[in-house]
Amino acid sequence: MYQVALFGAGRIGKVHAAGIASLPEAVLRYVSDVDGAAASALAARHGAEAATVEQVLADPQVAAVVVASSTDTHAELILRAAEAGKAVFCEKPIDLDLARAKACRDVLAASDAFAMVGFNRRFDPSFAALKARLDAGQIGRAEVLSITSRDPEPPPLDYVARSGGIFRDMLIHDFDMFRWLLGEEAVAVHAVGSCLVEPALAGLGDADTVLVTLRTGSGRLCQIGASRRAVYGYDQRIEVLGSAGMLQAGNLRRTEVRLATAEHVAEDLPPYFFLERYHEAYRRELAGFFADLAAGRPPSPSLEDGVRALELAEAATLSWREGREVVL
Amino acid sequence: MYQVALFGAGRIGKVHAAGIASLPEAVLRYVSDVDGAAASALAARHGAEAATVEQVLADPQVAAVVVASSTDTHAELILRAAEAGKAVFCEKPIDLDLARAKACRDVLAASDAFAMVGFNRRFDPSFAALKARLDAGQIGRAEVLSITSRDPEPPPLDYVARSGGIFRDMLIHDFDMFRWLLGEEAVAVHAVGSCLVEPALAGLGDADTVLVTLRTGSGRLCQIGASRRAVYGYDQRIEVLGSAGMLQAGNLRRTEVRLATAEHVAEDLPPYFFLERYHEAYRRELAGFFADLAAGRPPSPSLEDGVRALELAEAATLSWREGREVVL
Amino acid sequence: MYQVALFGAGRIGKVHAAGIASLPEAVLRYVSDVDGAAASALAARHGAEAATVEQVLADPQVAAVVVASSTDTHAELILRAAEAGKAVFCEKPIDLDLARAKACRDVLAASDAFAMVGFNRRFDPSFAALKARLDAGQIGRAEVLSITSRDPEPPPLDYVARSGGIFRDMLIHDFDMFRWLLGEEAVAVHAVGSCLVEPALAGLGDADTVLVTLRTGSGRLCQIGASRRAVYGYDQRIEVLGSAGMLQAGNLRRTEVRLATAEHVAEDLPPYFFLERYHEAYRRELAGFFADLAAGRPPSPSLEDGVRALELAEAATLSWREGREVVL
Amino acid sequence: MYQVALFGAGRIGKVHAAGIASLPEAVLRYVSDVDGAAASALAARHGAEAATVEQVLADPQVAAVVVASSTDTHAELILRAAEAGKAVFCEKPIDLDLARAKACRDVLAASDAFAMVGFNRRFDPSFAALKARLDAGQIGRAEVLSITSRDPEPPPLDYVARSGGIFRDMLIHDFDMFRWLLGEEAVAVHAVGSCLVEPALAGLGDADTVLVTLRTGSGRLCQIGASRRAVYGYDQRIEVLGSAGMLQAGNLRRTEVRLATAEHVAEDLPPYFFLERYHEAYRRELAGFFADLAAGRPPSPSLEDGVRALELAEAATLSWREGREVVL
Repeated sequence: MYQVALFGAGRIGKVHAAGIASLPEAVLRYVSDVDGAAASALAARHGAEAATVEQVLADPQVAAVVVASSTDTHAELILRAAEAGKAVFCEKPIDLDLARAKACRDVLAASDAFAMVGFNRRFDPSFAALKARLDAGQIGRAEVLSITSRDPEPPPLDYVARSGGIFRDMLIHDFDMFRWLLGEEAVAVHAVGSCLVEPALAGLGDADTVLVTLRTGSGRLCQIGASRRAVYGYDQRIEVLGSAGMLQAGNLRRTEVRLATAEHVAEDLPPYFFLERYHEAYRRELAGFFADLAAGRPPSPSLEDGVRALELAEAATLSWREGREVVL
Repeated sequence: MYQVALFGAGRIGKVHAAGIASLPEAVLRYVSDVDGAAASALAARHGAEAATVEQVLADPQVAAVVVASSTDTHAELILRAAEAGKAVFCEKPIDLDLARAKACRDVLAASDAFAMVGFNRRFDPSFAALKARLDAGQIGRAEVLSITSRDPEPPPLDYVARSGGIFRDMLIHDFDMFRWLLGEEAVAVHAVGSCLVEPALAGLGDADTVLVTLRTGSGRLCQIGASRRAVYGYDQRIEVLGSAGMLQAGNLRRTEVRLATAEHVAEDLPPYFFLERYHEAYRRELAGFFADLAAGRPPSPSLEDGVRALELAEAATLSWREGREVVL
Repeated sequence: MYQVALFGAGRIGKVHAAGIASLPEAVLRYVSDVDGAAASALAARHGAEAATVEQVLADPQVAAVVVASSTDTHAELILRAAEAGKAVFCEKPIDLDLARAKACRDVLAASDAFAMVGFNRRFDPSFAALKARLDAGQIGRAEVLSITSRDPEPPPLDYVARSGGIFRDMLIHDFDMFRWLLGEEAVAVHAVGSCLVEPALAGLGDADTVLVTLRTGSGRLCQIGASRRAVYGYDQRIEVLGSAGMLQAGNLRRTEVRLATAEHVAEDLPPYFFLERYHEAYRRELAGFFADLAAGRPPSPSLEDGVRALELAEAATLSWREGREVVL
Repeated sequence: MYQVALFGAGRIGKVHAAGIASLPEAVLRYVSDVDGAAASALAARHGAEAATVEQVLADPQVAAVVVASSTDTHAELILRAAEAGKAVFCEKPIDLDLARAKACRDVLAASDAFAMVGFNRRFDPSFAALKARLDAGQIGRAEVLSITSRDPEPPPLDYVARSGGIFRDMLIHDFDMFRWLLGEEAVAVHAVGSCLVEPALAGLGDADTVLVTLRTGSGRLCQIGASRRAVYGYDQRIEVLGSAGMLQAGNLRRTEVRLATAEHVAEDLPPYFFLERYHEAYRRELAGFFADLAAGRPPSPSLEDGVRALELAEAATLSWREGREVVL
């Protein structure tokens, strides 16, 4: 059984702590956080101990670390944990700065370190099933990918200010889905964006409503539509048109209840946000991490995947700012 | 935290063991089973101990027992556990014999025992939401209830032979849903049945495909359609027509993937069977049990609910056998 | 081209007049109605003439008559038109009185008359497609048929008073669907009913909410649920469970628009009532009538089908009144 | 009653002939076509006469003409008919050449001529209902429009060669929908395109799979995804995200039958192509034409609408060819 340390006792740290607890092959040994009380509370809930980063890395029984601390600490923790011989699962992104992310990737690539980036959507049961069917040829060759990605409501402005902008913060997931689903890199990126939800974002040099178009080397096309607001709930859909059909992964519903009245026939809403929508995906990505580790397989998604998605976010930001198609 | 003992380490026992493990307010202390190896294995998986019934009941630290052993042991275990002062959660049915079930209920009614029957469907998120909307008046007054209840495939013949027949074994859940949803008792029952799936059932005096009609005192109507076979998966739907609308609770889907080809636009199937479909319901019914216990509330569904559903199963069996409407 | 006369210039007469106008193989020649002004108006609209029954039957150029007059005139008009050598399309029912309906059928059976009864639902595109798929074996052998049949609102009391009761007036369509879809006769009928929508119906010896169960000779089962009120619109659904799957024919929607708000995701309602829902079915049944006529095929549904459905309505009425299963 | 002449007896001419026949306020008087036999056959079917353009325009009883002839004749016929004092309904486009289309518009704008362009999709019941709900504020302010527009299969290469390219031939409808739904003009257009369906199109300087992004002056965004092939049928969907919700207009289905088997739960396909999908829209646009004419209202969509959509098609073509965002 793998002994695991968790860095970060915040919202996503709690998700991963519960995920580890549900896996028979792993046990949570330590929780580390700059907020010692938060670390202690979360550790207590799962029979683990609060510890410093140094204590964690010095303990030879710790086989793996889960990095769920603030974004600016990711790269350093990855490097230190890998150096200490731990397998590393790190929440996206590696870093908001592309150069730092690449440097981190390069260091690990030169070693035999085991590091996985938390693009959880690859593990969503519906998206994973769509990918499996695509790979099985159920729609022939994929031609057009459409991704809809809308948050239920905009984040606080202070979060936005340090988020790296909507393309790095929010669409990075969608860029990873594009690469993963089509299995091919983009050769051109175009993005438009507006502040339609929160005018104050303009002052931060950010947008809240964006459309991105990508073209791959073989001419396949992808459109991503993202918004910081969808009042009906977290809207996460994927559609692939292929030469022999179409695959769609639709939204979940909170319940399967329908109400017919004199006005309409109404279904229940999608889950509110990512914690509800990707609950199972978070659990499965950790299971995948430990399965790769046990099998001696390179983990997937890799740090390279993290870098590539960030490159697309950079290109989209540039395209949007300069009003031009960016060739990669 | 409640220390809990589990009687029965079979399929449903495992579900409840995992359910207890997921609840912060309870901890599994003992597992007891006539198959000692099964008890030990399940206990080990959850940090509990294998024990005899006597050991469990003699331990004053055990606050509650979960009865998930074979049906013929339910009534006796309920009685002994209640006598020992334990709170009791018992899988349906109390007993296949109505007289024994009533006797058990009567003994507990004369004490201050705390006993709940496991009609898990009341705790299914969609069915519970439908009930809440019904009670909130979203469709006015309920007039007609339709329940569809189909297993994916018939059970082994030796299971059928000791099951008490389709009405007691399978439709008892639907009879409970009828009582729970309409909040009123039946005054007349009519049932028809056939052996269309498994001809050998006829030799056992059982049916595999049945339709039941119920009428309440105020004239409201209910139809239940049940089958031992639906090749597309476990079919569990509820529909209520009311004076101001209709509520429906539809099937879940394994994923939200849809495939459009030159032939059709295809959704994914419903979950295979009850373990998949009612996974969340099993967890929530145990949570409800401990919540009632903590709050000092009478548990729901009660032993009385268990007896009433069994009475309807008896009446339906009689109606089917004699080809006549049975007045209650 | 067939010259056609229409008896009845009321609501359903207008539907058939427009239907005839849309068919290249038929032309409306006469309209006859006790209300001469109504006959003249409808005739004028379609380039036809108002005429008496006698004039119509005396005109050798009239090849076919469509009987859409009041129910009590159907049997006589069928007999007279057949005697005059006209092909006859008659709205359901032949007569509310079973003996008269049988007598009418017997007279025509003894001749070589061509007469079709207007069970329009057989011609609904969705129901017809379901039937074709059933016959093609897409779900193996049919085992259970469920029919939902709900009007949007109850008819006026004076209509009800002369309607023959809900089983003859409304469920006769469903009884025909049962016979047509399963291709087998019922051996037992059970019905329950209540006055939940319009209490005054009780005084007329009628019900507004009913459930009917039928069993065929080979043990196949059917349940019909009907109500005089569904505030969300005309609810017309069919479901067939078979040994290898399930076929469902769902409601249409007025448009394909969906609205997602903070409350729900809402579809549009079903069509309001039969004129909207079965618009295409009415057109296709007339097309079928003329196609059978041109091909020299016996028309379907036949007068025999009309009699059989009425027999089931009688049996259901008896079952409901006496609270017992009726064996046929 | 308006006497109407039809120019063009081909596929779309036949649709309009039947549409005119179904309208009580119009009657088809003449059919004109370079293929005289086709004109005669269609005229005979609707009780009209074959005639030359000159004969039609010289007949003072002809109030309106419907131009459904080949695209290169549209502008001239519009001009001649308007000059002759006829109301003009013209199939899209006015002309494939923007300058000629503008010239035609300018001539008519200087007169009091009545001319409507056949953007039939505005009259589709679902799209029209979506527009009405949008205008009624059901989703607050519209922010993002997504249009999916896929043909079932590519046209013959010789058709493509004279079609003006996918943006002028196919997306012109979508550009009109964009303008109509958002009620605002585009300030920037970006398009990408590939030959994924029919490689031979590349040799014609055309694409078969395209994505277009538009931005309006107020920052609202639109994405259009179009393909010459969707094997599951004509895919015509619209989605609008607004500040208070989302409106979607989905595909129709050929029937409402669903089939559940051990593999999937399958719905019926969308209609095959535009004749089936927009059958009702074609009828309603003619009804709208005559209603506007009778009311003395300017017709909508106007020639100006035809020009504006063509301008967007030009801009998209340029953007795609040059790999850059085009500012308008």
